[in-house]
Order: sequence, then C-alpha cells, then structure tokens
Amino acid sequence: MTPEQEKEKEEKGEQEEQVLVLDAMKRYRNGEIWDFEDDMAVSDGHGGGENGVLLGLDGGTTSTVCICLPMVPSFSHSQLQSLPILARAVAGCSNHNSVGEIAARETLEQVMADALSKCGSKRSSVRAVCLAVSGVNHPTDQQRILNWLRDIFPSHVKLYVRNDAVAALASGTMGRLHGCVLIAGTGTIAYGFTEDGKEARAAGAGPVLGDWGSGYGIAAQALTAVVKAHDGRGPSTRLTNSILQALDLSSAEELIGWTYADPSWARIAALVPLVVSCAEAGDEVANKILLESVQELASSVKAVVERLGLSGQDGKDAFPFVMVGGVLEANRRWDIGKEVVNCISKYFPRVLPIRPKVEPAVGAAWLAWNFFMKDCYS
Amino acid sequence: MTPEQEKEKEEKGEQEEQVLVLDAMKRYRNGEIWDFEDDMAVSDGHGGGENGVLLGLDGGTTSTVCICLPMVPSFSHSQLQSLPILARAVAGCSNHNSVGEIAARETLEQVMADALSKCGSKRSSVRAVCLAVSGVNHPTDQQRILNWLRDIFPSHVKLYVRNDAVAALASGTMGRLHGCVLIAGTGTIAYGFTEDGKEARAAGAGPVLGDWGSGYGIAAQALTAVVKAHDGRGPSTRLTNSILQALDLSSAEELIGWTYADPSWARIAALVPLVVSCAEAGDEVANKILLESVQELASSVKAVVERLGLSGQDGKDAFPFVMVGGVLEANRRWDIGKEVVNCISKYFPRVLPIRPKVEPAVGAAWLAWNFFMKDCYS
Repeated sequence: MTPEQEKEKEEKGEQEEQVLVLDAMKRYRNGEIWDFEDDMAVSDGHGGGENGVLLGLDGGTTSTVCICLPMVPSFSHSQLQSLPILARAVAGCSNHNSVGEIAARETLEQVMADALSKCGSKRSSVRAVCLAVSGVNHPTDQQRILNWLRDIFPSHVKLYVRNDAVAALASGTMGRLHGCVLIAGTGTIAYGFTEDGKEARAAGAGPVLGDWGSGYGIAAQALTAVVKAHDGRGPSTRLTNSILQALDLSSAEELIGWTYADPSWARIAALVPLVVSCAEAGDEVANKILLESVQELASSVKAVVERLGLSGQDGKDAFPFVMVGGVLEANRRWDIGKEVVNCISKYFPRVLPIRPKVEPAVGAAWLAWNFFMKDCYS
Repeated sequence: MTPEQEKEKEEKGEQEEQVLVLDAMKRYRNGEIWDFEDDMAVSDGHGGGENGVLLGLDGGTTSTVCICLPMVPSFSHSQLQSLPILARAVAGCSNHNSVGEIAARETLEQVMADALSKCGSKRSSVRAVCLAVSGVNHPTDQQRILNWLRDIFPSHVKLYVRNDAVAALASGTMGRLHGCVLIAGTGTIAYGFTEDGKEARAAGAGPVLGDWGSGYGIAAQALTAVVKAHDGRGPSTRLTNSILQALDLSSAEELIGWTYADPSWARIAALVPLVVSCAEAGDEVANKILLESVQELASSVKAVVERLGLSGQDGKDAFPFVMVGGVLEANRRWDIGKEVVNCISKYFPRVLPIRPKVEPAVGAAWLAWNFFMKDCYS
C-alpha cells in the first residue's frame, strides 16, 4: 500500500467512523430532543471550554435534576466545590419501577438535552455522565441503562450509572465514595461505602417492607393514630384536628376514604410537618411516632456501619455520615436528623454528621469528575 | 260507576300494576341473568314451598356467597339451625370499593339469580333478602345499594343491606344482633351490637391505617423481618428460608420485587400459615409477630366492648364473642383465636367465645328471617 493509499484509507475510515457515531447518536433522538445541536455553529457546543463538560443526574421518584459542570482536570479534589454550575434542568419521575422503562428513559434523555442546551454545549463536548437514579439496585438494572445511554453519546464519553443514594452521599463528601448516607424523604434508605469499594445498604424496601422511619412511615403512623383515637383503640391526640383540618375532612371515617383514594406515597408523606408541629406542641402520640422513626432510621445507619466496619476495629474510626431528605432537614425545633445523630453517636462516637449544602445532582456531577479522573489519569 | 265498571277498573288496575312490577323486574335483567324464570312452568318457582324463600348474601373482597333458605314463619328463633340450605351459589368480589359499583352490582345480581335458579325458585317467591357486603360503611352506601336492589325484586320483597361483619356475627348468634364479632382474614375488623340497637366498630381501616392484626398485617411484618434480617437491622429468622422457599425466590432482594409486583393484599396475607409454622417451630421473630397481632386484635375487641358497654356496668355481664376468618381458625397448635380470647378474658371474664359452624352467608339468611319476622309479625 502506497502512503497515498494509506492516507486515503485512513480518511475513509475516519469518515466511516464518523458516520457510525452519528448514526448511533441519531438512533435515540426521540423526535426533536437533540435538534438544538443542529442549530449550533461549528465553533459552538463547547460551553465548558476546551476541556468540555460533565453531567450529573439525580433521578428520583418525584423529580429528576441534571447539573452541568465544566471539566477541569487540573483541579484537586478539594477544589471541586468552586466549580461553577453551568446549567441546571429539571424533569419528572425517572424511576423505571414507577413509570416504566420507556418513560424513564425519555425523561432522562430530555433533562440531559435541556441542561446541555441551556449552557450551549453539545453531546460531543461531554466528557463524563454520572446517572444516579432510584430503582437501580442490581447490576442488570445498571447494564440495561448503560446500554441505551451508550447509544445517546459518542463513544469517547465516560458513562457511570449508580443508585441515587450514591449521589446523595457524594453531595456531602465532595464526590468521594466513603461513609454512610441516610436518605429520608417519602421513602428512606441507608447506603454505605468503604474506601476500598465495598458497599452495603439497609431499608429502602418501601412502605410494605418496614420503611417506618420514612416520611410515608411517619405520616401513616399518624393517620393510624387518628383512626385508633376515633375507634377507642388509642388515646386522643392533637393529630386528629390537625390532620382533618389540613385535609378539609370532617371525620376520621372520611380519612379512610381519603387514604385509599390515591395510591401515591408522597401524598401521605406530605403530612409529616403536621406531625412535627403536634410533637412540638407537646402531643405525646406525635412525639412517640417521631421517636420511633428516629429509632428506625438509626437502626438502618447502624446496620450499614457495622456491616462495612466503617468505624474501624475498635469502633472509634471517624467516618462521614451524610443526611439528606425532607425528614432530616434542620428547620424545626423537633429535629429528627439531630436525634438520629444523637442515637448513633452512642455506638460510633466519631461519626461526622454532614448536612450537604448542595443538591444530590451536584454530587452526581462531582462523582462524574472523580470517576473520570480515576479512569483517565490514574 | 256500576259494579261491572268497578270490577273492570279493578281488573285493569291489577293488570297495570302487574305490568309495572314486570317492568321494574326487567329493568335490571342485565342480559340473560333472569331468563331462567321464563322457562319455569307457572306452578314452579316456589322452591321453598308455600311460604317462599329467604336469600342471605355475604359479599367480601375475595368472594361472594349467596344462600337460599326456606321461609318458615312458624319456627322459633332457636330452630333456625335446622332450616335446610336449599341452594348455595358463589361469585367473585362484590366490594364496590375494589371493583366499582357496576361490577359489584352485576356480581351480586348474578349470584342471587344462580342461587334461586339452583333451587327452582323465582324472584316472586322471595320473602326477604339480606345483603351483607363489605364496603358498606355509611347510610349512603346502604341507600344506594337498596335503590338498585329495589328495582330487581317485586315490591313485596323485604330488603336489608348491611356490612358483611353483621353476617359474620349472625352466623355465630343464630341471626341475633347482640355481642361482638372479630373478623381476621386478609383484613380485620371488630364489630359490636347491643340488644337495643347501638353499634360500634374498631379497626377495619385497611393496611395503611393500622390493621396490624390482620392476615395482611402479620404477613407484612414477616416479610419485613426477612428484609431486616438480610440487611442487618434484625435478628436472623426461620422466616427467611421458609418464605423464600415457598415463593421460589433465591434472595431477600428478590422479595422486594415480588412484594410490589402485584398490589393484591390477599396474596401477601396467604403467607400467614408459614408464619404460624415458624412460630410453632420455636422461631422467636415469628412468635413475636403473632403475639403482637394478638394484642392488636384484642385491642379492637376491647375498644368495641367498652364503647358499647357490652359487659355491663360492673364489667361482668356475659356477651357473645364471635370469631371469624382464616387468622382465627382453630386448626393450629399456635392458636391466634385462643390467645385473643385469653387476652380479652382478663378484661371481660364472662365473654362467651364462639367459632361459628356455618358460614357468614347463612348468618345473613338467618338475619333475613329475623328482620322479616320483626317487620311482619311484631
């Protein structure tokens, strides 16, 4: 083969490769999701500058958030917090168990396209994507999502698929997978990671299977207390007036109809602030419900920390403990998160409690940075 | 008006009335449900003899049973047990909250037609119908069902609509509404009646609202115990092997998928015998779950008995306590019903425990007899 022939073959190969990449990218265009890329000038599409951008996604049962950060390989780990957020996009539920595979996929693709479009970037400038979605529990879930994600992006883009609990942890540890995260919103789960890559989880099995520390669990206990007060099985409680008034119902009987009229767990969990208010006002029933939820939440954390040995051989090692979710927010006098920390401190005196200042999707983007740096520079 | 004219008018009036009755009876024929009546000879249709028949229906979430008894006005209350069952028909769910009003109605109409057809009776020979269906909680539910029931039967037929708990009580008291009935199958409810017509209920608010003594409640706690043993929150238990083996699953993780794959409460409640077996084999976790369910069930009974004062001023009056449903059946060494009786005997020493020998639909038919006798002969 002459040098000319070789060059021709090379060029032809490159062209063919490009065509294949474009084909792959087009395969999942889902109508007009990626059309904005065609309108960009050739020089555009590098919103993050020379080094491109990172995408972090936090996909939950209520909503999905996508964050776009610039890729800065020269940054050290501790500088991550100063990376500016180039774009933020929000969409609905992307848990495939809730809405099905096809709808989940479309939501995830749309929210990524929105984020890139907002900061004037194209898929070709993306360096890494970390998709942290609820409902990813098995390697098979992970692989299935990776497969279709692979078809959306050019082959140079690094892709990582994890459970959403991982993004929550990373939001408190600046992208490092070490420590324990407790999430308590509508549902609850505790997730832990050791520095050498072991992981464990506790709870997260939903309302039928004992997630009593969750927002749903707390509110369901409160509703039960109202029914029990009404039929004589339990003591009277402030919860009755408080909940009936908030729901505009006139009797505990009507509460039964209200409860089963809509199967959404989030709708029930939304009553948690009322339970906290009643406890703050001195109601014993509400107080007992919150104390029990603290015990349940602490037992999840304890199980994870013990299984992973996060507190070391003598139980005195320090480890990060990240708290995320509405139930654990520190905006009330009756502070559930603080009580959980008090409870687990008895077992693990050197626990380092963290309430993240950024949302989990930022944690997912930091994870993308970490994974990318490890894959490419180590 | 001459006597001839009067007679003519009278005959015309009777004919018109008959046409109206037939119209009303045809209005809800629902296709061919009642066609069998047309094929009967004029002399037929009185399967119960001169005095006609009674229908008793027990409509639950799992199935609906219709019993046809002969009407014998000369019987005394204590002779009711010797009334022969002329026919028994079975159909599916007739709880309007589960399957909707139209489907519930069609099921109820079909099962009544089946029972009448089996014993060669027509609607015109029915004296009274007692429809005891789950989901009837308010006078409005009762009235709505009475309205369409009225359109099916000729106007002389007495109609009674009650909650299915009433039929269960009647099956143990030979149709008398006095005492307390505890039903514990998939769900649970305690219902009580005083001789002067007061009534009260406790529990029965479904799985979200604290029916922890029910079959569903027991099984959900057992599933939770398996998950907790798996993730380190709870002690190991025989329930793990027992349940995973029965469901042909290989891990506790798979149990989560199994649990949410099908929302039917009965499917979960069907695991109760496994929990009883584990408790009988000495498993502490299973034992604790059953003991807690006994406490929950007893607290429902206690609430009802106290609210109605069934045990009298000094707490020492005798009252019937009827136990119905799979959870309370006396076919196991670990006898939940017996434990409930032990528990409430401490509060009410003269409680008279009854495990009925006939099914609730027979109780409903006895109720029909009682109501009819009261309405027509008192």
